Parts: sequence; C-alpha cells; structure tokens
Amino acid sequence: MELKRLRGGITEPEGFLAAGVRAGVRSKGLDLALLSCEEGPVPSAGAFTTNTVKAAPVILTMRHLRRERRLGAVVANSGCANSFTGERGLRDAARMAGLTAELLGLKAHQVGVASTGMIGTYLPMEKVEAGIREAVARLSPSREASRSAARAILTTDRSPKEVAVHVETEDGVPVTIAGMAKGAGMIRPRLRTATMLVFLTTDARVDPLFLRSSLQASVDRSLNMITVDNDTSTNDMVLVMASGRAGNGELRGDRNFQRGLDFVLTELAKMIVKGAEGATRMMEVRVKGARRGEARKAAMAVAGSNLLKAALFGGDPNWGRVVAALGYSGARFNPSRLTLKVKSRRGEATLVERGKPLGGPELPEAVEVMKASEIIFEIDLGEGEEEATAWGCDLSHGYVRINSRYRT
Amino acid sequence: MELKRLRGGITEPEGFLAAGVRAGVRSKGLDLALLSCEEGPVPSAGAFTTNTVKAAPVILTMRHLRRERRLGAVVANSGCANSFTGERGLRDAARMAGLTAELLGLKAHQVGVASTGMIGTYLPMEKVEAGIREAVARLSPSREASRSAARAILTTDRSPKEVAVHVETEDGVPVTIAGMAKGAGMIRPRLRTATMLVFLTTDARVDPLFLRSSLQASVDRSLNMITVDNDTSTNDMVLVMASGRAGNGELRGDRNFQRGLDFVLTELAKMIVKGAEGATRMMEVRVKGARRGEARKAAMAVAGSNLLKAALFGGDPNWGRVVAALGYSGARFNPSRLTLKVKSRRGEATLVERGKPLGGPELPEAVEVMKASEIIFEIDLGEGEEEATAWGCDLSHGYVRINSRYRT
Repeated sequence: MELKRLRGGITEPEGFLAAGVRAGVRSKGLDLALLSCEEGPVPSAGAFTTNTVKAAPVILTMRHLRRERRLGAVVANSGCANSFTGERGLRDAARMAGLTAELLGLKAHQVGVASTGMIGTYLPMEKVEAGIREAVARLSPSREASRSAARAILTTDRSPKEVAVHVETEDGVPVTIAGMAKGAGMIRPRLRTATMLVFLTTDARVDPLFLRSSLQASVDRSLNMITVDNDTSTNDMVLVMASGRAGNGELRGDRNFQRGLDFVLTELAKMIVKGAEGATRMMEVRVKGARRGEARKAAMAVAGSNLLKAALFGGDPNWGRVVAALGYSGARFNPSRLTLKVKSRRGEATLVERGKPLGGPELPEAVEVMKASEIIFEIDLGEGEEEATAWGCDLSHGYVRINSRYRT
Repeated sequence: MELKRLRGGITEPEGFLAAGVRAGVRSKGLDLALLSCEEGPVPSAGAFTTNTVKAAPVILTMRHLRRERRLGAVVANSGCANSFTGERGLRDAARMAGLTAELLGLKAHQVGVASTGMIGTYLPMEKVEAGIREAVARLSPSREASRSAARAILTTDRSPKEVAVHVETEDGVPVTIAGMAKGAGMIRPRLRTATMLVFLTTDARVDPLFLRSSLQASVDRSLNMITVDNDTSTNDMVLVMASGRAGNGELRGDRNFQRGLDFVLTELAKMIVKGAEGATRMMEVRVKGARRGEARKAAMAVAGSNLLKAALFGGDPNWGRVVAALGYSGARFNPSRLTLKVKSRRGEATLVERGKPLGGPELPEAVEVMKASEIIFEIDLGEGEEEATAWGCDLSHGYVRINSRYRT
C-alpha cells in the first residue's frame, strides 16, 4: 500500500472546518481552537488520560463520547487546564460545549472540549465565550485555518504540529487522515478507552467501534510510547472524527486505514518529543528480543531515564545508564545475552555484544554517533520475540529553566 | 527511650577500625575505604539493589552473606562501579575480597565488597591491590579514620555523610549504632533481602536474623523512600555489622535498637537527598489518609516528579504538579477529598482543602514558604489510615551540568 504524505493538517480530509483565535486566556497569542465537521455529528472516538485526577474537559468529553460516539465539533483552549477545578470547572467546560453546540446547531453532547495550561485555576469564561463566538465566525476549510487551530492549542511548544496522509483502503478507495498535536511538558501519556492534545480527522467512512479500536491500537504504538519527563498529565486527550465524505464502504477492520492512522500518530508523537520543553536531541529506543509483554517497559524505562537524558544532552555515550535503566525496567533478561548499539546519521557503534562491553563509554565511534540530533539505541535482550519502540528527548538546561518558572 | 546523637561515624561503636586511602581509581582524591571488625567475623546483614543488572561486587557480597551471615571486613572503592563487567568483573571483586581477607586473617567470604562510579569499565587491579595493602596498614578506630573512609566512597557527592547514635536496648544496656553513606545520582533505591552505598556498624550483640529483619524494616522507611532522579543503580548496597562489644544480651526483636537504626538510616537518607547532584532544595512529602499499601506510592510519585522538582528549584508553589503526580501514582483517591499543605521554616499555606483550591499557584503565603531550603508537602488523601514519608530534591541546572558530562 502506498502512503502519501500531504501538506496541511486537520482540514485536508473532506468535510472539516477549523479556526484558531485569540480569546485572551494566555498572556499573548492564539489560545482557542475550534474544529467542526460540515456533516454534523459523525463517528468519533477518543483516548483519555488515565490519571486519577482528570481535568473537567476530560471528564465531560468522556461522558459525551460514551453517550453517542458521535461528535460534530471540538473546542479547545490553551493557557488554563481547567483541572482540579471541581464543580465550577465542570460547569465551565459544559458551557464551552453548550455555547459551541448552540452556535453550530449541534447538541451539547456532540461537542468535545479540551483544555491545556495551568492546573488549579479557573477559566476566564467571558473571554472564552467571546473567543468561541469569534472562532465560529471564522471557521474555514483552508490550510491557514488549520494552522491557526494548531497554533491556538500550544503552550510551551516551539511550533505547531500537523500531519496529513493519503492512504487507500483495502477496497482501493483513497481516504485522507490528518491530525494536529500539542505537547511539550508533563508528557508521559498513559491513554486509555496527555497535557498532550491530539485531534485527528478523516474523510473515511468508519464504523465507530473500529474507529475506537484502531485509535487505541495506534495510540499504544505512538503516543503511549513517548516520554518527555515521565509526568502524566491530567488533561491528555486524543480525539478522532470521521466525516465519511471519501465515499468508501464503511471500514470495519481495514489494515491500510490502521497503517495511515499509525503513521499520523507516530509522526505527531515524534514531533511532540522533538519539540519538547528544552529538547535539543531526540532518542529512539528500539527494543527487540524481549519476553512477551516486556518490550514496552524496557523501551520506556530507557527513554525516560533522567541520567541517560542528561547524557544525551551532553552527547555522552554513557551506555551504563541504558543498561541500568533496562535493569530496573521490570523486563527480565540475562545481562550476558544483551546486545546494545547506538546509531545516527553520523554512523553506528556496537557498545555491548551479547553481554560483552566493546569498549568503555569513551569509544570514539560512539562519541561521533552521539553528535547527531536524532540518536537510535538498538537493544536486543536476547530473550524472546517481542519488539517495541519508544521515543524520548534529552534533559537540558532549557527544560529546567522553563519548568522552574512556568506560567502559560 | 532516649536517643542521643554522637559525633563521628562507623568507628564510634566499639570494635571497629576504618581507613580511607587513595588508590588512584579516580582522577583525584581518596577512593578506597576499608572497614574492619576487631572481633573478626560478626553477625552482619545486607540489602542490595533489585536491579536486574547487578554489579559484580553486589553479586559477590550477596553470595558471601548467604553463606555465613558474618562479615569481618568491608572493602569499597569509588571511581569504577565494576558493573556490567562479566566474568572479569567477578574475578576482580573476588580478588578484592581475597586480598583483604588474606591481610586480615579472614576467609574471603567474610569480606563484603562494594564499588561505585562508572558502569562498563574494569577496575585497575594493580592500583586497587596496592590501595588495599595501604588501607590495612592504616586501619584505626579514630574519628579521622572514619572520616577518611566516608570520604573515600564518594563520587559526585558534595560531602561525607556520617551519623552515630547511642540508644539503650529494652534491657537498659547502652549500645551505639553508626553509619556512613555515599549517594548523589542514580538514586532511587529499591533494596531488598542503591549507586548508593551505606555501611553501618553497631557494638550491640544482635541475632543475625533480627539484624536482617530490622535492617530491612529501617531501609523500607528510609533509603527506599528517597529519590534523586528515579534511576535505580546496579550497585546499591547497605551492609550492617554488629560487633557485640556492648555486652548486652543478644537482641532478637528490640524496639529501641530498631528506633536507633531507623534514626541512623533516615538521617543518612536525608543527607543523600540534600547532597544530591546539583540539589539546592529538599522536599519532604508526607502522605496520610491513604488506602493500605498506597501511601508509599503516592509519596514517592510526588518526590520523583520532574516537573515538581523543577518547580522546587524555581521556588514556585505550582501545586498542580503535586496533584498530577498523585493522580498517576497508582494510589486511589477522590480528588474532592484531597487536602494539600506546604510548610517550611518560613511559614505554612493550605493550597487545597478537601478538594477545594484555596487560591491559584500564585498564593503569596505559598510563595513565601517555598523560599526555604527544606519544604514539606503535607497531603491527606482522605481515604484510609496509611501514612508514609518520602524525600526528594530539586531538579537544577547543576544536575543537568553534572550528568551531561559525568566522569568520576
């Protein structure tokens, strides 16, 4: 199957309109995004943070999707997470849904609501309501509108994150899948049926149950495999809406659609990691040879190790930290069968071959490999057949600076 | 029971000699410590890292203690962890034990061996052997000798860590318990029957099984409740030796001895956190009202949150990060029953009262409280009866600087 990457974002699939406006929740810049489907309420699915403390918009949108599995619009603000805000927070989130629904001819439960920013503060509702009105007036299918929406959900992110692809369904019908994301800190999504927000659109006709299961499958391979700081947010949310405009027969298990969705979410996941707070380098951690159910743990422990992240910042091939992280990951392995390589566009170096260190951390090839901005650690645990890939970033002075005085 | 703190360290209890010398493993400074008991092999107990990758000295010392539960000496080096060094590493560790035993008239399995420093490099054995010979020649019961040993086990630590106390056993016999510690990074001990090293001595006569169970009980309340960077080392080791010189009846369950051991280990644990790599502030996280088995998880998640640690560095009472960490800790609670306070010598502020935020993160009292160097977070989950306390430090530019170019 061919998978063709497109320019643009969530308005590339047929049937979607977007807008990004300034409501004034943040001190400056766009801060309110609206996504709307011209078809009205369409099959939709979501994945939400598993944090015990769930922000008001998360609680509300989970309820909305449980009720009908159809959304007609999504409204999102940055600058205030509306999290740990109790009944008042829930009322504010419901008001965002209600007003959006009213202006777009939908029912309130057909609107998804998302927020990101500071925890423990209330939304300035007058500003938010004025922003929603303006966003509705500006809804457009243009790439500029998509870009504005992608900008409006950002907080400490460095740049907007948009991906769009064409795939052909197994029946040979071309469909488009697209997404936008926000995420820069408090990123270690544990999503299930982050303050990471991802909104996806497709013009494929998709059975709602398949939409939900394919979303969860993709999320498990992409967003659930990244970490910036091991902190799981109270606001993480992924939503996908399927307009059905592509004219294909309803998808109930299409591998090509799944591949397209995998691609969009993995690209967005990597963009989140590369654009993470203070990040200067990205690492991809590929684990193979793991026992069943253990590859993900091993990969995530390495990607999340503070010590390895600091070494990555310094370009230091301190592979003992990889080994230590594998050792506390919970994955079972015999150190004497471990193989570890590091790769980048600057070359490749084998650090450990079946348990044998091939040189200390000063290995010159390894030092050279670590100079690149994207580093791959290839790990073979030598135990089983399972594989997993995780992504992480370095721990830099920038991260400390940003998070020692964070105000969105 | 009175608990009286003493000056000095591991040579305060009767019957112990110590030395710290320069063997030349590190680029500068003392790097080889020796602890010896004048009584020869005495009841001893250990707790070791649960990392799957265990350093050679950890594997060796576990074997030695399993064999006889008696040690007559402990030899430790800094500058090289002798971890992930395969058969050669095991031979080197065995040689350290063998030579020490030979020189002190012990059997090799009566010597504990510990190492800390870089993972994946071999020990320079000629230097180590010369160091052991010199250390044996310098063994002394003096405070200076104890101090030298405490210095010789350090790597990136800022200063030596020694504690000694007098307690009376339940029978009214005065005994002394003392310890020294090393630990500055790769600190999130998960010890069971850290590159944290702790060596303890006591002149009490103690039943070996009680010595082991009381050590594990103390470790679970102290060293297993600290985190610097959530990275669990391959080399963590705690050893206690009981000389029996105090003349008490053999202890088989003495609460006062347990309290003394708790005190020594908790003080050392806090010294490790305060002296952690780059640390400028310490936090104590007190959790109460937790369900059974969940207080520790909740406290450790808060103490280990990178975002909260960065906020602590900046003196920012960003309590949303406390709430988020509690939410992903795995402890079950209803956010509407959560109470959260922050305290220090500069005052006290209630941030959340039974689920209700009492002001955003800019609360002036909280900003004032956060200016101190030791901050206490008091958390009531409002669910059950369980309590736990954890300790952590801030995430600073110093931590990033040290760990982006670490060489001991």
